[in-house]
Amino acid sequence: MPKHPIEQRSAFRYFTPIQVRWGDLDPFNHVNNVLYYRYFELAIVTFLVHEAGLDLAGSSPVVSFAAESHCVFNKAIDLSGFGPQGVMIDGAVRVDRLGSSSVTWGLALFRQGEEDAAAQGSWTHVFVNRQTSRPTPIPDDLRAAMARYTA
Amino acid sequence: MPKHPIEQRSAFRYFTPIQVRWGDLDPFNHVNNVLYYRYFELAIVTFLVHEAGLDLAGSSPVVSFAAESHCVFNKAIDLSGFGPQGVMIDGAVRVDRLGSSSVTWGLALFRQGEEDAAAQGSWTHVFVNRQTSRPTPIPDDLRAAMARYTA
Amino acid sequence: MPKHPIEQRSAFRYFTPIQVRWGDLDPFNHVNNVLYYRYFELAIVTFLVHEAGLDLAGSSPVVSFAAESHCVFNKAIDLSGFGPQGVMIDGAVRVDRLGSSSVTWGLALFRQGEEDAAAQGSWTHVFVNRQTSRPTPIPDDLRAAMARYTA
Amino acid sequence: MPKHPIEQRSAFRYFTPIQVRWGDLDPFNHVNNVLYYRYFELAIVTFLVHEAGLDLAGSSPVVSFAAESHCVFNKAIDLSGFGPQGVMIDGAVRVDRLGSSSVTWGLALFRQGEEDAAAQGSWTHVFVNRQTSRPTPIPDDLRAAMARYTA
Repeated sequence: MPKHPIEQRSAFRYFTPIQVRWGDLDPFNHVNNVLYYRYFELAIVTFLVHEAGLDLAGSSPVVSFAAESHCVFNKAIDLSGFGPQGVMIDGAVRVDRLGSSSVTWGLALFRQGEEDAAAQGSWTHVFVNRQTSRPTPIPDDLRAAMARYTA
Repeated sequence: MPKHPIEQRSAFRYFTPIQVRWGDLDPFNHVNNVLYYRYFELAIVTFLVHEAGLDLAGSSPVVSFAAESHCVFNKAIDLSGFGPQGVMIDGAVRVDRLGSSSVTWGLALFRQGEEDAAAQGSWTHVFVNRQTSRPTPIPDDLRAAMARYTA
Repeated sequence: MPKHPIEQRSAFRYFTPIQVRWGDLDPFNHVNNVLYYRYFELAIVTFLVHEAGLDLAGSSPVVSFAAESHCVFNKAIDLSGFGPQGVMIDGAVRVDRLGSSSVTWGLALFRQGEEDAAAQGSWTHVFVNRQTSRPTPIPDDLRAAMARYTA
Repeated sequence: MPKHPIEQRSAFRYFTPIQVRWGDLDPFNHVNNVLYYRYFELAIVTFLVHEAGLDLAGSSPVVSFAAESHCVFNKAIDLSGFGPQGVMIDGAVRVDRLGSSSVTWGLALFRQGEEDAAAQGSWTHVFVNRQTSRPTPIPDDLRAAMARYTA
């Protein structure tokens, strides 16, 4: 099994808060591991829509299709630390590889007050034309936003 | 079809923020209607854990089982108004009926800046012993917290 | 709390098998109550697409929007009775009210080998034009399929 | 980006049917990519519970925690081919690495009638003591079941 050094907060500059839900827990009383990808997705979509201005749920001519994803689970996330908004964690996003029509995101989830990532992973998106589903070059403004978050 | 007057914010005193996720959307580009119950659940759990001090995901001797739930859908929730945390809505909770071992919650979901509920409903919980699953009287401190939010 | 007599299999003529997933369970080791609406939805969609020929996920001019839903939880569903396909339950669908542009479904979930419903409920759909989201009369062939399953 | 040859059915001997749900679709009208992990999980759990006899949702002294997972998305899964049970796909499972307390599963999802995997991936589970969450050797009968499905 390849070793993965545990990601630190200092390796990221873009963070988005993620609200954990009771319904994310499984019989082991932890957030179910599948949900980590839901959290990654939420962090990426927040980056794309809010930081990069992509109207993903509306009428952007270009949308992102997943090509590959990966997650390493370091530590369980559960409902400890429950506050007025429930449990919030931080989703961290950076750009690890920026191709002409694809991007590979570097991702991590941090529990509040912790420097070590509870989970870390990657996700490759291919940008496609919304009508034809064919790969298309990443539009300039989107590319510029991504370029600001390369390592 | 019975008419339901649309619930207003002024009919509630307990609100909890709920984060909408991209993954909550369905092919109609709206939050899927099943998810409204997930949001109701999140609002109730936040009330129980944070406001009423019930250690639901831990070791509380008493837990809540759903007996009945209901939702009226007034207006779609989607990703419009996307901000730095994505789309946040407000989950509103009150106590419509407080029995010896059961509670019926009055619930509503409000889009930000709106007075009319996007959805409204009710949920009846029976409190049971965690080990035996048998109905049990609502503990005094939990009951006191609920009593503060009766209409 | 109004009493609901427990629904029986004999009150239904349309059934669709539903596969329970590990990921449907919550910390109480039961199917989470929100998922019951997911199962209802699956049963209705199977009726609409397979029995009534509506191309819901494709290009049908008419689609269904939820107006109201309701569920009574009689008995927990869990992973007992796990077989080669995991746990299968039966989703039962009938038409309780057929309006000009809306339908109220009568619904129930049965564990295999049981006559009493584990859960029962209703769901009102309004049919709308896919482009405008405005209510539209139920198309004749769809209406005919529904009419075969009125009580 | 490393190339992944597309997995074929002939590379697997254990298959479990998986029912696609309307609620699995996202605004692109495809099964949302996060759900592929839900399907992998369902296939693994069916293997563990039905083929290997592990009482995962009950009282087995040993349970499985995810350490790492990975998926390559070759082709979209949608509602085409909708039959009386909706859309069924095949989840394929094999054992790619069997350690003393961990296993790495080889996984793939096949649309019906297709030889090429719509998606393929891997998942590493560590077996832990249910009470202490500490890694524990895989019990002999569980190991024997896994050993039957090594490549």
